[in-house]
Order: sequence, then structure tokens, then C-alpha cells
Amino acid sequence: MNDASMLRVAVVGCGYWGPNLLRNFVACPHTRLVAACDRDAARLQKALSAYPGVEAIVEFEQLLARTDIDAVAIATPVATHEPLATAALETGKHVLVEKPLASTARGAERLLRLAQNRGLTLMVDHTFVYSGAIELIKRLVEEGELGELYFIDSVRINLGLLQHDINVVWDLATHDISILDFLFGRLPRSLAATGSCHVNPELEDVAYLSLDFGGNLLASVHVNWLSPVKIRHLIIGGSRKSLVYNNLDPVEPIKIFDRGVEVGESPEERARILVSYRTGDVWSPHVPLIEPLQRVILDFVKSVKTGASPRSDGESGLRVVRVLESAQRSIKAQGGRIIL
Amino acid sequence: MNDASMLRVAVVGCGYWGPNLLRNFVACPHTRLVAACDRDAARLQKALSAYPGVEAIVEFEQLLARTDIDAVAIATPVATHEPLATAALETGKHVLVEKPLASTARGAERLLRLAQNRGLTLMVDHTFVYSGAIELIKRLVEEGELGELYFIDSVRINLGLLQHDINVVWDLATHDISILDFLFGRLPRSLAATGSCHVNPELEDVAYLSLDFGGNLLASVHVNWLSPVKIRHLIIGGSRKSLVYNNLDPVEPIKIFDRGVEVGESPEERARILVSYRTGDVWSPHVPLIEPLQRVILDFVKSVKTGASPRSDGESGLRVVRVLESAQRSIKAQGGRIIL
Amino acid sequence: MNDASMLRVAVVGCGYWGPNLLRNFVACPHTRLVAACDRDAARLQKALSAYPGVEAIVEFEQLLARTDIDAVAIATPVATHEPLATAALETGKHVLVEKPLASTARGAERLLRLAQNRGLTLMVDHTFVYSGAIELIKRLVEEGELGELYFIDSVRINLGLLQHDINVVWDLATHDISILDFLFGRLPRSLAATGSCHVNPELEDVAYLSLDFGGNLLASVHVNWLSPVKIRHLIIGGSRKSLVYNNLDPVEPIKIFDRGVEVGESPEERARILVSYRTGDVWSPHVPLIEPLQRVILDFVKSVKTGASPRSDGESGLRVVRVLESAQRSIKAQGGRIIL
Amino acid sequence: MNDASMLRVAVVGCGYWGPNLLRNFVACPHTRLVAACDRDAARLQKALSAYPGVEAIVEFEQLLARTDIDAVAIATPVATHEPLATAALETGKHVLVEKPLASTARGAERLLRLAQNRGLTLMVDHTFVYSGAIELIKRLVEEGELGELYFIDSVRINLGLLQHDINVVWDLATHDISILDFLFGRLPRSLAATGSCHVNPELEDVAYLSLDFGGNLLASVHVNWLSPVKIRHLIIGGSRKSLVYNNLDPVEPIKIFDRGVEVGESPEERARILVSYRTGDVWSPHVPLIEPLQRVILDFVKSVKTGASPRSDGESGLRVVRVLESAQRSIKAQGGRIIL
Repeated sequence: MNDASMLRVAVVGCGYWGPNLLRNFVACPHTRLVAACDRDAARLQKALSAYPGVEAIVEFEQLLARTDIDAVAIATPVATHEPLATAALETGKHVLVEKPLASTARGAERLLRLAQNRGLTLMVDHTFVYSGAIELIKRLVEEGELGELYFIDSVRINLGLLQHDINVVWDLATHDISILDFLFGRLPRSLAATGSCHVNPELEDVAYLSLDFGGNLLASVHVNWLSPVKIRHLIIGGSRKSLVYNNLDPVEPIKIFDRGVEVGESPEERARILVSYRTGDVWSPHVPLIEPLQRVILDFVKSVKTGASPRSDGESGLRVVRVLESAQRSIKAQGGRIIL
Repeated sequence: MNDASMLRVAVVGCGYWGPNLLRNFVACPHTRLVAACDRDAARLQKALSAYPGVEAIVEFEQLLARTDIDAVAIATPVATHEPLATAALETGKHVLVEKPLASTARGAERLLRLAQNRGLTLMVDHTFVYSGAIELIKRLVEEGELGELYFIDSVRINLGLLQHDINVVWDLATHDISILDFLFGRLPRSLAATGSCHVNPELEDVAYLSLDFGGNLLASVHVNWLSPVKIRHLIIGGSRKSLVYNNLDPVEPIKIFDRGVEVGESPEERARILVSYRTGDVWSPHVPLIEPLQRVILDFVKSVKTGASPRSDGESGLRVVRVLESAQRSIKAQGGRIIL
Repeated sequence: MNDASMLRVAVVGCGYWGPNLLRNFVACPHTRLVAACDRDAARLQKALSAYPGVEAIVEFEQLLARTDIDAVAIATPVATHEPLATAALETGKHVLVEKPLASTARGAERLLRLAQNRGLTLMVDHTFVYSGAIELIKRLVEEGELGELYFIDSVRINLGLLQHDINVVWDLATHDISILDFLFGRLPRSLAATGSCHVNPELEDVAYLSLDFGGNLLASVHVNWLSPVKIRHLIIGGSRKSLVYNNLDPVEPIKIFDRGVEVGESPEERARILVSYRTGDVWSPHVPLIEPLQRVILDFVKSVKTGASPRSDGESGLRVVRVLESAQRSIKAQGGRIIL
Repeated sequence: MNDASMLRVAVVGCGYWGPNLLRNFVACPHTRLVAACDRDAARLQKALSAYPGVEAIVEFEQLLARTDIDAVAIATPVATHEPLATAALETGKHVLVEKPLASTARGAERLLRLAQNRGLTLMVDHTFVYSGAIELIKRLVEEGELGELYFIDSVRINLGLLQHDINVVWDLATHDISILDFLFGRLPRSLAATGSCHVNPELEDVAYLSLDFGGNLLASVHVNWLSPVKIRHLIIGGSRKSLVYNNLDPVEPIKIFDRGVEVGESPEERARILVSYRTGDVWSPHVPLIEPLQRVILDFVKSVKTGASPRSDGESGLRVVRVLESAQRSIKAQGGRIIL
């Protein structure tokens, strides 16, 4: 690919996630990292020390004014996602936003409409849905390998890293909700959530979400910043097989269990709920190691070039924010059910 | 102890749990197993085959008429707990009931009042609260080893054994709720629960309970009959230390983690919620292997002999049933909050 | 099967293993347990308490004189295996001996010859080779699923149970050596072993065996009575796939790894030993739960009835004792190589 | 520290380990990385791309001629360690050599003598003995926490990375032998080793070493490049307590087990070897995360500045090579015992 056809990008925000974006835009053969921007000049300088050719821009307005930048990737605090993305779209730039897309569903909707009106790509970086493991799980679900889905149980707990501007739901559960959104492509029908605050009296550090996807499919999410042990598992129970994804197991991250409950076939057996248990092989498919963020960027480039919707498009970004917002409301109501 | 001072007992119900009671009453030096009772004569015969001196009684009424029986242990389907225990108390017999005490809080209350009026022991077999591990955990909590409690997360999931008369909450969560009741000796302030039915359209096989114990202490219980993997863990997060109890680890069932989040001391630090993470040693105390059911029986005998309340007395049995009943109602309301 | 065709057996020795034999002979539809024998009358009585119809015989000579006993199963200290089995064979009884067959290769040979001369079944109870897991492993090896075998590594370590009459090699390594003998049906070419004594100055409680099976196939056995952790694993590395058998994992005892080293095909590549690593799926076949000792007994009965050689016949018993004896010699020579 | 007092170093060899040295010399406040050297100019350029101020020198002789270089760190193939280190010492440079120190004990001795004669520091990079875990283990052993040592079992197995110039003993067992040397500071009395070659007919890819340290202390090392699973454990069994170091467990790398075998106290009990088993707590001390290589470099600098012997000095480097060489000889003799 010659230089002219490369997407010229700038990264806004050089805190925790920004440096990953810098590294991946530099590594991507289809993008040219033109500049990075951060209000904290020292942090900006440090983040760019390994990329001598990339410009450091402290003022975001200055970056907006640049016509040699086609797209911006925003990795700033959540509350600033909407204003910064709005400004970028208004100057005709394609936008990739760190998850979650915005701090309110309204804000996410406004961004979505603005991008549509301008014919620009608006994408949210739901990194996990670009991982090999989650792709494989989606395929298994869609091909019916698991049969009818019964329940999904996701646990994402560990000690830290506490955020100062958002609670554990907006920080960690965003991953789980975006994975569920990728699997089903729709909102849950309703949800109920509980949580509590310990370290910061304003921000929940422990939370439980229960999402009803209809058809008896119950999804649960447990997120926790205070757990002494680190657990990252996703259990999907199905009528044919079941699956466990353990993100911390480098050797066998996904296991498919050929086991389940069989209900008797004859009417009498069904009436008496005569069940038997089937226990078969366990199979752990090899999951290739590919950095998901590299694939996020490739999908972003493709969307800009062709106009095709990226996998984690503004629509999915909006749905995820809707769920987060509803979970927040349910927690404040101590578990009250919210219809979506 | 001479024979005259031994408690003369009969076991009612020889299904899943009854044989454990038979074995433990025979082994206990303070009890004499006089008889066992089951409507299914073949099952009764089989259960008694190893105990030639124990009488087989098919009709419960016949057992009630016996004056050489001081106490009965009831291990029948939950719906029959109240009528059978009522009849036994009315003929002056002390009663030990398999968990849960009754199928309704009203029924549990009636039993409680009846036993008090008659001056008889009414005890529920919350086996877990007599285990060495749970005793140790209670001691650690009470001695302040964990500091202020932040959250409790209990997961009790595996494939089967599905019950035909009660759902997974009444079957499995009874254990967790009785453990919480033992730790705190009081009802949660409120709860919210969700669940769904897959194998039997009437009985939930997956459920999540969220219990608010006040003071920001949130307890969660996940019970599941359809999980491809077996998990039995109890995580207790505290301000000083945290604890994980893994019931499936025979070597290190309890681990105490000297780690947590430290919030800055100065007002400015607190205002900015400056946190740091402390990571210290992990300590796994040796938990002696004692069969909890043997200790249930010893406590029952002691209560009958001295009039002292047993650890899992009728009051705690009632509180546990109240929580179960409320959880059931919340599930039907799809997560609605129930004040207790 | 009518009673007349049932094999009439007696168990000799009611210590650790004897009660398992009693239970399994009673459960087997093709055997009738006539009597049990132990010099310790109290122990004998206790072992037989659950089997009222079985005769207690304290004197072994009395048992030998009985003509209504077709076969004896010997579960006494190793040093007594040869004399007891000899006496039993000489009175025309078929013999099943607990592992190892005898305490010397000479003794094992004498037993073998005697049984052949008398036309009687002589079988050793190499329990493991009747387990579902080891059967499956043998099948995988024979079908070439693993390709050419490179190495076998067996670890069988834990705290206790120390024996008083034999060292850890004769106690634990017998299992591993009998498994290797089942897999290959032949002696290793040579071996070298080391070990040391700590608790009892006469008996090794830690030992390492290295067995050369020819063709670059190296097998290693680590047995240890003093390990703080319990490990039971068998790793088989092959040119196509590799296998790990973890006897302590009830869910996935056997895992087959589709991974290995590929050496370049072209002569230049081979010359430069250009290797690449292949990492594929992991597959854990379901292993049915069958008590191996039940199948030992069925094979014994079949051998007596038909004259067919049992799987763990006297020949394999002899080979295993030869390896044990050689390992003992090598340990005394501090690792000296012994040709078999 | 002002620039004048900084040690001026050059790194020789930019293959697998060299870049780690580059990074750590740059990070160290007491060293100034002046140059790097590699015959492969492209590889050299790539390794230095992140360090613009560091000189690239293709010819080693040119580097030797430089008077502004005080010390060289050699990370080249093992066979070249001796000639390169010799040349460096002869031009008055202090030398840090990647493990193992040399490919023969003779060579190691010659280096040692040369360094002594010239009054220069000769150090070998036994990285593991600078890790927090191994330091803690040495302290526990020395303070008698484990009591008398019974056995040490080290397993270091995984798939790859096969070396082309040395076998698995020289590659992996060097780590284990250097750890044992750090713990005891002396050679084993004798050793016996076996191994076999599969991928490369000249180089063992599986090997077992058994080292006799006297006083019944047996140490075993299993190294393997063909194992489908990765295991890194060190078990140390003692008369008081035992220890397991699992290098792959980031949370509880070291566990100390308060369990063991107790032999009866009275003469009769000892005579009958009446044993009982003690099972107590498990304690997992926190191990601080410090990059060991950084501490290797600090010790090197200190040695150069003060003349003090570094922890992994030439003497220990020589002892380790002696053991490796003897293991090699024993393998060729198929397990023959070698006296050291």
C-alpha cells in the first residue's frame, strides 16, 4: 500500500489505553500515525518518546484544525467522549472511541446521528469482540454447537484498578455487555442490578447484573474491584453442550463440555421430568494469538475506506451504553427491574 | 454413658439424606437408633440392611405411638416437613428436620411456636454451619481478622442433581443462606433475585440472589444445576484482609489474603480517593476433617438434655425459610426488591 | 449363572487391600466368597462383619485343606506371597496375588513354573492396568495416535503411607512398572535408579528410576512418600501428539495435546535441524468410571474357566518383579546401570 | 551518581538474551551502555533501534581496542564464551558471561585464573539466584525453617525452545544446578544422569539428573524440551516443613507446608518405625516482583567497584560447569555414576 492510500490518524489521550493505540497505529500497514494529543504535555512527550516522527499536539482545537488528519482515536475519560467525538466529526474526521462510546445513551445517540449525517465512520473500541476466543464462541453459538442457550455467567473480578471517574460497571461490565451484544446483536428485554460502594462512596466497586434475553436465556455479570483473587470466566450453558472461557488460562482458554441434562422423551417421562445426566468428552480448541486491537484498527480502516459498518459500530456502542445506563438506574433502585 | 441416658431416636425418610442420619446416629455414643421409617418398604429394608438391630416401621403413625422413642429426625420431601414435625412434636418427641425447616415461613413459625409451647427441641439440620471450615470463617470474621466486611460472593454450581419437588434456590441456596445466617444471626434488610427454568418449566434451575445486609455489605449467591463445571466458592472481601473458601480443594480449602485497597489518610487524599494496593502473604489454615453431621447430632442431643438452644435452632431455620420465600417472590417479579 | 458354576474363593489377608477384595468378590456375579483368612482374629472378624455368610478361618493350613474352595486371593505382606501362593497352588487352588507377585524374581519364576505344571491360573493384581484410563492410553498408543513414542514420565508422590516391610519402589513404582509392562509387553533394556532413606534407615522413601526401552524411548518414574503435595501424572511425549494422564483430576483425567516439534523436511533443513512448533487443540476423552478391581476379578474368573491368560498374568508379574529387583540393585549402586 | 563514576559497558551478542542485557544496562543508574556488538549487522541494528546513543560495533576486535569501555557482557553461543571472555579479560575489561560460564570445566578454570591474575571481575549471569523467590528459599533453608533437608525435586519442562548448539541439560538444567549451587555452595558428591535425543540426533532433548549432596540429601532435575505441558516446580522436602516453588503461579509462587512424617520418640517406637503424619497450615509468603537481571547488574557493578565477589562468581560458574560436564558424561554412560 502506498503512502497516499494510508489513513492518517491522531490519537487523543495518552493515559492508560492511548499508548496501546499509538503502538498499534504505528504497526498497522494501512495507517499513518500523524499526531498524538494530550493536555498533559509531559505525559504526551513520554508516550511519544519511541515514535520520533509523530507530532505532539497539546491543544485539541489545534488538532481539529489540521487537514492532514483523516481520523482520530479518542482515549480520554468517558465524560469527554461525546464532546471530543462531536467536535472531531464536525470537522469531518472519522472517529474511533474507546469503550464505552459515551457516558449517556442520549449522548451516544447524538454521536450516532451526527456521524450518519456527515457520512463518517463512528466506531467504538469494544476490544474483546475482536479477540480470537470471542469470535470462536460466537461461531459455536451460531452453528448450534451448544444447542439452545440456557444461561450465560460472566465473572470479571480482581483487586483494582479502581477508576476515579466511573464505577466498576462502566469500567469492567462494558466488556461483558459488549460481548453479549456481539453474540446476540440486540438489547436484553430487561435487567436488574445491585451493587455497593466501599472505597469511594460515590462509585460502586462491586456489582451484579442480571439480564433477561428472553426465551429463558438469563445472563449474569459479576464485576468487582475488591476481590482478592482474579477470575475471568464466561460460562455458557446450552441444551446440547456447554462452554467455559477462562481468559486467564493461556493453554486451554476455551473448553467445550459434551455434557448436559437429558429429559425423557415419552410424555409420561416428560411429565415426571425424568432426567439423566450425560457426561462426554471435553474439547479445547486452539485459539490463535492475535492482538485484538490490531484487528479493531483494521476494521476501522476498512469502514472508512468502504463505508461498511465495523463490527463494533455506533449502533452496538449505543446499545451497550443503554444497558450500562439501565444497570446504573437499577443499582440505585437496589435491584429494581428495568425494561429496555 | 449408660444405655438409660442415651437418646432414643428414629429416622423418618430413607431417601438421599436419611442413610447419612442412620449411620451417624448409630456411630454417636449418645444416641440409640431405635427405628427407621419410610413408606417405601423396599427402600427402608435396604437402608437398614447394615443395622440388624434397628426396627423398620412403614407407617409413620405407628412410630408416633411408640413411647420408647424420644426424638425423630425427619428427612422427607420439604413439603412434608411441617405436617410430620407437627405430629411428632404433638406426641412429645423432639425433632431434628432436614434443611430447609419448612416450605413456608408460616409453617416454620407454627413449628417454632409448637415446640416452644411443648418445651421440646426443634432443630434444623443446617449441616454446613457445623463444618470446621465455616466455624473457622465465623471466628475470623468475629475476631476482626478481615476488618469491615465489604462483600460476600457464594457460588454453588454443578451439573445436577435436579430435584423434582423444589427449585435450585430451595435446594442449594439454603446452604448459602444458612451460612450467612450463622455468620450474622440476622435477616438481610432486603433482597433481589432472578432465575430461570429450563429442564422443568415449573422449577428454576439457575438463580442469582443479591442480599443487602446493611452497612454496604452486599452478599450474592449463584446456584445452578446446569453448569458444566463444578464450583463451590465463597469469597469474603474485607477492609483488612479477604478470604476464599473453596470447598473442592481438599488441601487448602480456606485461603486468607493479606491484600486490599488502602485509601489515603489525609483529607485531600481521601477527597481525591488516592488509593494504593497492598499485596501480602496468603495463609491457608489447616481445617480438621470432622464429619459435620456428627456434630449436628451432638448439638441436638445436648439441646434435648439441657434445654440449650442448638446452633441451628428453629429461629435460624425460620429466618432461612423467610429468605428463601422472599427470593422466590423476587424471582417471580423478575428481580424486584423485597424488604425483609 | 447358577450357583454350581460360580468360582468359590477365599481371601487371605484382611489388612489394607483385603477388604477391597472381599467387597468385590461379594459383588461379582461369577464368584462366591466362601471364606476369609487372617492370623489376626480380631481384624478378620471386623473385616467380615458386613458379610455374615462368609466363614472366618484363622489358620491358613485349615483353608488349604478345604475342598470347597477353588481359588484364593492373597493380600498379605510381600515376603509371604511366594510361600502362601506355593502352598495354595500345591493343593490345587487357582491363585490371585496382590502386587507385586513375589519379593524376588526367582520366587516369581518358581510360582510361574509351579502354576504351569499344575495347569492352574496364577494371576497378579496389577489393578491399574484394568482401569479405563490406562486401557484408553494403551489403545491410543497402539493405534499410533501419538506417533513414535519419545518419553514417558510418571510421577507418583505424596505424604505417606509409608510401608514397614518394603520401600517406596516396591510399594508405589510397582504401579508404574506394571503400566509400562502393559503398554509394551516387554522388559526395558536397561535401567538406572537412585533413592534415599530418611524415616526408616533401611527403606528408601524417595526414588527415581530411569528405564531405557530402546529406540530412544526413555521412561522415568519418580516415587516419593515424603512429598508435601500429591502428584499423580503420566506424561507420554510422542512424535505426533502427546498425552497427560492426571489421576487426580476427576473431570479431565486424560488430555491429548495436538502439539509437537516439526523438523524441516528437506535435507538442508534436517541438516540445520530447522524446527517449528505446532500447537493445536486439546482433547479430553470421557473415561467411564468402572472399578478396576471388579474387572481384575472378571479376568481371573475367565482365566480359571477357560484357561486363557489373564491380562496381568504370571509372566507380567515376573517381568515387573525383575524390574523392581534391578531397580533395587541400581539404587544400592547409587545409580549404576543394570542390563535386563 | 555522576557520569564519571558510571561503569561503561558493551554488550556482545544480540540474539535471545542480549536485548535483555541492553535494556537493563540502559535502565541501571550505575552503568552507561557505550556499545553493542554482533557479527550480524542487521540484528545488531535492530537491537539498538530503541537506543539511539549506543554505538553499533560489528567487529569484536574493534570493541576490544576501545579504552572507553570498562566491562563487557557476553551473550553469545556457549562455545564462544571462553575465547571472547579471555580476549576481553586480556584487554583489561571486566566480564559478565551469560550462563553457563564456559563449555568445559577446563575452560571455566582458565577464565577464573586469568581474571584472578588480572584482578578483574569475572561473573556469570545465573539469573535465577538473583530472583526474590530463590533468595527467600535460601533464607528459609538457612534459618532451619524446613529442618533437615530430605530431597529436592526440580522439574523444568515445556515444548521448545530447542537449542542448536547445546542440549537440554546445558540449556535448562544450568538453571537448576546454579540454584542448588547457590543453596549449598558446594558440588554434589556424585551424580547419575540419563537422557535421550529425538529431534536432533546429537543433542538430548529429555534428561534426568540425580545428584547426591551427602547426608541422604538427594536432588533430582528433570529437564525436557518436548513436554506438551509446561511445568516449573521445585519441591524441597524437609524434616520440619516442606516447600513448593511453582514459578508459573503468579499469585502464590512459594508455598510452605507445615506437614511431615513424625517418627515415634521412644526406642521401641523408633525400632518399629511407628510413624504418624502431621498436617498443618500452608503459608504462601509474598514475593516482591523485582527483575532479577537488574540485580545481577547491580552486583556486577558492585564487584567491579569494590572487588567483592559477586553472588554468582567465577567459582560458582566453574562448579556449575563441572556438574554439567559430569552429567553429560553420565548420560553417555547411560546412567553411570560420576564422582565429583
